[in-house]
Amino acid sequence: MLEALKEDVYKANLDLVTKGLVLITWGNASAIDRDQRRVVIKPSGVSYDDMSPSDMPVVDLEGTVIEGDLRPSVDLATHLVLYKAFPQIGGIVHTHSHYATCFAQASRPIPCFGTTHADYFYGEVPVSDVLTEAEVAEDYEHHIGEVIVRRFHNLDPMHHPGVLAACHAPFTWGITVAQAVEHAYVLEEIARMAMHTLMLTPNTERIASYLLDKHFLRKHGSKAYYGQRRDL
Amino acid sequence: MLEALKEDVYKANLDLVTKGLVLITWGNASAIDRDQRRVVIKPSGVSYDDMSPSDMPVVDLEGTVIEGDLRPSVDLATHLVLYKAFPQIGGIVHTHSHYATCFAQASRPIPCFGTTHADYFYGEVPVSDVLTEAEVAEDYEHHIGEVIVRRFHNLDPMHHPGVLAACHAPFTWGITVAQAVEHAYVLEEIARMAMHTLMLTPNTERIASYLLDKHFLRKHGSKAYYGQRRDL
Amino acid sequence: MLEALKEDVYKANLDLVTKGLVLITWGNASAIDRDQRRVVIKPSGVSYDDMSPSDMPVVDLEGTVIEGDLRPSVDLATHLVLYKAFPQIGGIVHTHSHYATCFAQASRPIPCFGTTHADYFYGEVPVSDVLTEAEVAEDYEHHIGEVIVRRFHNLDPMHHPGVLAACHAPFTWGITVAQAVEHAYVLEEIARMAMHTLMLTPNTERIASYLLDKHFLRKHGSKAYYGQRRDL
Amino acid sequence: MLEALKEDVYKANLDLVTKGLVLITWGNASAIDRDQRRVVIKPSGVSYDDMSPSDMPVVDLEGTVIEGDLRPSVDLATHLVLYKAFPQIGGIVHTHSHYATCFAQASRPIPCFGTTHADYFYGEVPVSDVLTEAEVAEDYEHHIGEVIVRRFHNLDPMHHPGVLAACHAPFTWGITVAQAVEHAYVLEEIARMAMHTLMLTPNTERIASYLLDKHFLRKHGSKAYYGQRRDL
Repeated sequence: MLEALKEDVYKANLDLVTKGLVLITWGNASAIDRDQRRVVIKPSGVSYDDMSPSDMPVVDLEGTVIEGDLRPSVDLATHLVLYKAFPQIGGIVHTHSHYATCFAQASRPIPCFGTTHADYFYGEVPVSDVLTEAEVAEDYEHHIGEVIVRRFHNLDPMHHPGVLAACHAPFTWGITVAQAVEHAYVLEEIARMAMHTLMLTPNTERIASYLLDKHFLRKHGSKAYYGQRRDL
Repeated sequence: MLEALKEDVYKANLDLVTKGLVLITWGNASAIDRDQRRVVIKPSGVSYDDMSPSDMPVVDLEGTVIEGDLRPSVDLATHLVLYKAFPQIGGIVHTHSHYATCFAQASRPIPCFGTTHADYFYGEVPVSDVLTEAEVAEDYEHHIGEVIVRRFHNLDPMHHPGVLAACHAPFTWGITVAQAVEHAYVLEEIARMAMHTLMLTPNTERIASYLLDKHFLRKHGSKAYYGQRRDL
Repeated sequence: MLEALKEDVYKANLDLVTKGLVLITWGNASAIDRDQRRVVIKPSGVSYDDMSPSDMPVVDLEGTVIEGDLRPSVDLATHLVLYKAFPQIGGIVHTHSHYATCFAQASRPIPCFGTTHADYFYGEVPVSDVLTEAEVAEDYEHHIGEVIVRRFHNLDPMHHPGVLAACHAPFTWGITVAQAVEHAYVLEEIARMAMHTLMLTPNTERIASYLLDKHFLRKHGSKAYYGQRRDL
Repeated sequence: MLEALKEDVYKANLDLVTKGLVLITWGNASAIDRDQRRVVIKPSGVSYDDMSPSDMPVVDLEGTVIEGDLRPSVDLATHLVLYKAFPQIGGIVHTHSHYATCFAQASRPIPCFGTTHADYFYGEVPVSDVLTEAEVAEDYEHHIGEVIVRRFHNLDPMHHPGVLAACHAPFTWGITVAQAVEHAYVLEEIARMAMHTLMLTPNTERIASYLLDKHFLRKHGSKAYYGQRRDL
């Protein structure tokens, strides 16, 4: 079942390695079929070289394996919480990409310092809370999802297609898993730009809100005019 | 029409990717035919992998598409302002190359700290103003060009073959589009050198004017003696 | 003798180059056969391009060459001290990998700032003492091993599979030489993450002990549940 | 004439590019035949892709071209001064390699912070003076050589096989041009290590003199014991 989605998820996981976002097995990608209520995700701790599309486990929204011989990623519970809370998203990516992880380790949001950032995130990249001891002790991976959702209480996940889990690493998402990969790639570059900008001028100011509006809305929303017209 | 120029522009756009100056579709190159008053530029939001020379739109100096099925880059209006204001230039490149963009985000000019820089820029790399809300609201990309031209009021664009658009990213130019690409590449390396020099010694002084003169004029101007003689 | 182990050691030495952990001949890997009490190690100062598995010298635990025409690495004496002191380990790697070496040069342990680190080291990466003049004067390489062992007086080498030799560079180890290589690779990335985290926020705090426990024990020890079940 | 030496110089110039030490045409390598009193050097401003060994000009010690159709590198005069002052050296390399150039731009010597450095330089990497206006005005490239030689008044060029020309970039040398390339490569890595060590701990101390002695003399001088015995 879901052979095309398995292909997408398989390819997305390999792309994370090719793009330099994942070392060893430090990352995973998943996608959801909303009609069938099934999620396809990377198997846990398996080398990227040894995987094939048919190795991708299929699970239901409670995390029960419906198809596949391998255990799903330990981060599955986090993905499931996000899929339930953010109905617009179709794919999720988790990495320990270098610069985004440094901001997560410092528990600092990434400020919007330029148009590169504003083309993708409608303001800062948020940070979710550090988990409490109780949240870690029971259903740890589930609670990682919960603290992310809590952080998005007043944020639109389509305006901020990613988050930094404090002391941990980033999660990104998108309409498709391929877009979630693109957002992971963009997040890493804007994190690196923000770090070097801060090292050059520690008190750099965020860009003006009218410039943020211009860039984000030039590519997103009903008046977008970047790229080729979609109806052509 | 302009098939040779389309080849040059196509190749220049691919070179930006090969040289690591452009990620995703974050950049564009153009060239002008001054006799025919036509500009060839990258199409908007098209992947570099999917382009061929014949996809490059040809426009007139008012931006009307004369030939080609694809929309020109959204940055076209900026390029046109620069071609009109700087009659010596034949090609323009826009990138979000990493270190140059960090200086742009911090709105800091790049000081001339060494001979590497002095071989290409006759002094600092200038920064243009942040656009006002009114300039962003109407004809945004046109106004990016206007603020750059304003910054060059007393500067020779052949002595400073590039600029940092504040909160945004660099633009470079040259006699040809290939030279504009070379200047984009050099700008990125001198930005990276300047950043690391400042991190090592924050109060590093600019090089002496006689050393700046020596290096810039050894490669440029009537008494240049670097390289092989052009008449050979 | 020990042809399979020579293959492993040969391959490990090449992997160090491929993974960017070793430049020129700045590194070496070894493995031990505990039953036969023999160690296989890289030959000294030989280019990685020119080696074959049969070039790997076999030595006894006193460092006498039992088989092979080439001198063993000058760091052999260090490896032998570690094999004797840490009976659980089967392989050792020494590199001058960039960021780990910077922490060693600054004589600073690497604090645990995030889960990436906590998945592999159960707390900070320790630093061993600078050698005294007397320790350098006689049996220098032997004493490098001794100061490392002294540093592990109250530490479990399986909880901290590596160390920074002050003013020098890292050593890592593992159950096998392949695992020692993996630990050298991980150490380099967590050193780089810690450096950039400190540059971003100099007073970043270490992660909570309950989060450190969770991550280290999720992958190690009797209740590990990361990856595929080993008995499958 | 000197066909073998032309091959060596050609290969050394290409190695500088392969090793990431030279961008565009920012570097050159030369070698000397002491018996015939001839120097072979890279031609000026020629792309590395377009060269062949027979393009390498041969000059005498006054800089007169004896063989070859292309102009020698503009830096030839610097090389000639060094060959005359340092009779032990057989090859010279000039690059604008990134981190070494940053130290040169900041006019800071590179302190010896660890054994990686001590294996190649017997103490800090020195910086030569900024040239005066008069020195720049006449015979500029000759005077670059003169200020380097002045800096080595009390230094042994075999103990410090390289220098940073202030506000400019590094020069390295060796017994052969291949060794000069190796020293350029090592210099770049120890510059990068020193910069990151200083960013981590600005007041890092230099290594103890007994440790410096140990490492430099383990690889150099009459009691060297690193590598394979030369007489085998």
